[in-house]
Amino acid sequence: MADFDLIVIGSGPGGYVAAIRASQLGQKVAIVERENLGGICLNWGCIPTKALLKSGEKFESLSHLKDYGLSAEKIGFDFDAIIQRSRGVADTMNKGVAFLMKKHKIEVIEGSAKLERGATAPKVVVALKAGGNRTVEARAVMLAVGARARALPQIGLEADGDRIWAYREALAPKTLPKSFVVIGSGAIGLEFASFYRALGAEVTVVEAVDRIMPVEDEEVSKTAQKAFEKRGIKFRVGARVTRVSKSVSGVKVDVEISGKAEALEAEVCISAVGITANTDGIGLEALGVELDRGHIRTDSHCQTNVKGLYAIGDCAGAPWLAHKASHEGIHAAEHIAGFRTPNVHSPIAGCTYTQPQVASVGVTEQGAKADKREVKIGRFPFRVNGKAVAAGETDGFVKVIFDAKTGALIGAHMIGHEVTEMIQGFVTAITMEATEEDIHGIVYPHPTMSEAMHEASLDAYQRVLHL
Amino acid sequence: MADFDLIVIGSGPGGYVAAIRASQLGQKVAIVERENLGGICLNWGCIPTKALLKSGEKFESLSHLKDYGLSAEKIGFDFDAIIQRSRGVADTMNKGVAFLMKKHKIEVIEGSAKLERGATAPKVVVALKAGGNRTVEARAVMLAVGARARALPQIGLEADGDRIWAYREALAPKTLPKSFVVIGSGAIGLEFASFYRALGAEVTVVEAVDRIMPVEDEEVSKTAQKAFEKRGIKFRVGARVTRVSKSVSGVKVDVEISGKAEALEAEVCISAVGITANTDGIGLEALGVELDRGHIRTDSHCQTNVKGLYAIGDCAGAPWLAHKASHEGIHAAEHIAGFRTPNVHSPIAGCTYTQPQVASVGVTEQGAKADKREVKIGRFPFRVNGKAVAAGETDGFVKVIFDAKTGALIGAHMIGHEVTEMIQGFVTAITMEATEEDIHGIVYPHPTMSEAMHEASLDAYQRVLHL
Repeated sequence: MADFDLIVIGSGPGGYVAAIRASQLGQKVAIVERENLGGICLNWGCIPTKALLKSGEKFESLSHLKDYGLSAEKIGFDFDAIIQRSRGVADTMNKGVAFLMKKHKIEVIEGSAKLERGATAPKVVVALKAGGNRTVEARAVMLAVGARARALPQIGLEADGDRIWAYREALAPKTLPKSFVVIGSGAIGLEFASFYRALGAEVTVVEAVDRIMPVEDEEVSKTAQKAFEKRGIKFRVGARVTRVSKSVSGVKVDVEISGKAEALEAEVCISAVGITANTDGIGLEALGVELDRGHIRTDSHCQTNVKGLYAIGDCAGAPWLAHKASHEGIHAAEHIAGFRTPNVHSPIAGCTYTQPQVASVGVTEQGAKADKREVKIGRFPFRVNGKAVAAGETDGFVKVIFDAKTGALIGAHMIGHEVTEMIQGFVTAITMEATEEDIHGIVYPHPTMSEAMHEASLDAYQRVLHL
Repeated sequence: MADFDLIVIGSGPGGYVAAIRASQLGQKVAIVERENLGGICLNWGCIPTKALLKSGEKFESLSHLKDYGLSAEKIGFDFDAIIQRSRGVADTMNKGVAFLMKKHKIEVIEGSAKLERGATAPKVVVALKAGGNRTVEARAVMLAVGARARALPQIGLEADGDRIWAYREALAPKTLPKSFVVIGSGAIGLEFASFYRALGAEVTVVEAVDRIMPVEDEEVSKTAQKAFEKRGIKFRVGARVTRVSKSVSGVKVDVEISGKAEALEAEVCISAVGITANTDGIGLEALGVELDRGHIRTDSHCQTNVKGLYAIGDCAGAPWLAHKASHEGIHAAEHIAGFRTPNVHSPIAGCTYTQPQVASVGVTEQGAKADKREVKIGRFPFRVNGKAVAAGETDGFVKVIFDAKTGALIGAHMIGHEVTEMIQGFVTAITMEATEEDIHGIVYPHPTMSEAMHEASLDAYQRVLHL
């Protein structure tokens, strides 16, 4: 008989949430974690970066007190205290997961897991942190092993904890460098750029394609770049990094822009060129687990090609977002417990917590065009929204995309203050298959910045009120 | 032939938005305004209060910089600059409305309107600001005349611009009083209490019923009172005001609590005991316009009992909210233009911009109980939400109410940081008739405070993940 109904490998949000859901459904569950409960997201990702960004945002806002009739002198920060606060937040969340595991009677096995051929599902051999091995078996095994920062050793781009940092080093440095070159303008790269710039560092962001935030709608990219430049962040787009090397003063990043070589120098280089799924060293090859361009191939119920083996989250492919992992984890846990419901795909929003913030869901205008979809597009800038004017937060806009034939909302793109908390309204609308008529009929409360969501939807049908 | 297709009387958000919509539909429109374009909301209500509250919130946050690793000395404010900023914001919005009227070729008639019997609709006689009268006629007339602060002269509660203020005086005082008694704990009273307390004033709020924010869910009232008390605001609930009178030091408010008399003294008393519809002096009696407990009675298309006469917004009844007025204004404008669509009633959310904020939509637990509705209730506190912990904004919670039989979401109540921008997600869900299953399937982005909306919905069905 198996030791457990389910063994989850990896305790990031996808993994621990799956374990909780399985436990709620009466399953006997174990979770294997090789480092910290909560995984990268809670300990070295989403959560501690938000703590840093909040300190940075508050510090930067101290330079604008006069706009609000306020004043202060000798404005300053204690870099170590900012970092310690962030580590404290991560620690709180980590302890929270430990509490939840205990409450739900989920056995936590500390160590590194490796899979071996088993009866109903692969066996899990854990090299225990405390020493020795422990082999456990279950009816089902769920891989939630996540991903790590991608390194490009061939051009010298590999975190060394000294001059070249990935997210881990960037989250807990001992001192504050004066200047940075950030390679990669996705969410991770830009959030670090935004934070260190807020504290006064010189920051240059390098992006290989011809615009920053390449997954976002082009208009968002353009507005974002302008807003970041206003804050003093510099950009090199269409820039291929040819070499990263240590220099006397720090680090030198050689780039090539339109065939022209340029050397960027800084104290520190932050590498944010994407991630690599943690699929190596856990016995996938021997079991014959199918991969697809580096991630584990799964079906709509998160099942791999190996009996009893599931995979969710980053290791199972894009988008590499914690909420996508949790959603998959819950579905997989229910499937393992015998539910046979289809996996409803709510759209997955993307959020970037820079200043201004960016949040989006569904298709971009460029994506719709590439798919030859006929669309109706509406826009509304925050600068004419009453609440935004009252709050002094007028940067950015809302852009919405409707299918011209059905009227269904198929995409929403927002840039501005706290838009990451607003996007759920559009996620709800798309999940509920709302049409333009539905959204026009929704009464958005006044005065809120969310009224811009309504106005953009009205604008798509030549009904905008405040433009 | 009539001069216009539509004459709108009153240019608050309901009125000017109705005029714009009518113009979009090809109607020839005039709008009559006796004071400032934009009405009370833009000039003396929603918008300028939000500007004040933002200054207050930012000032108060300067006392907590250390929590974020930041520091500043000689923290201060310039009261006059705070007030001037707020007036400037109102002025910007007022100019915006003027621009919109011009753009949509809506004739603005400055003066006070009075109705007289007419052919297809009542005639409008305007006593012009510039002097003289002008009589205009239209196919339809829309009353958007709003409301004003209620006075209770029988107990001495009447704004005098000196010791007793209503919202107008409270929005633009010359100097900052040291102490206040605020009568009424609805949104208006508490927003002023929150603002003046943020600037260091002693504030006591008096409420006649046994809890503050009587229209909100009881749990919200309780949490709100605790949070406000932590900020130093004092409360007297179940307190009947028997007399308001000037005293040597300012103003004396005599109250009776459980039969016991108590005298509250302060420099200034702010009266926020509700509003009175502006139905007097505009000729309604002579036309035989039916009223219902002080407001104009209308049907589902905002039509009064008098042919061609519509009424929308505050003058047509509760809830006295700008977004309800705009929604009615748009519907009425479309009805006048010949649309025969039913008036879809999206639920109307209520927002209070205190610290913490309160936002709610649909039924309360107490309301459901009174209606003998079987419900499922879920709750989730922000103190265990990762984003809230990272941002240091852990006050408050989300509470949701589902119909136990149908699973439909029928109420949502939130208290916490910026919940006024989040509530639109639940407004969308209720409008789209979302059930618990729908909401459980929505992927709320991580890490956001909006995840608490998901968790509360899961909690109602014993599926909460992080508790």
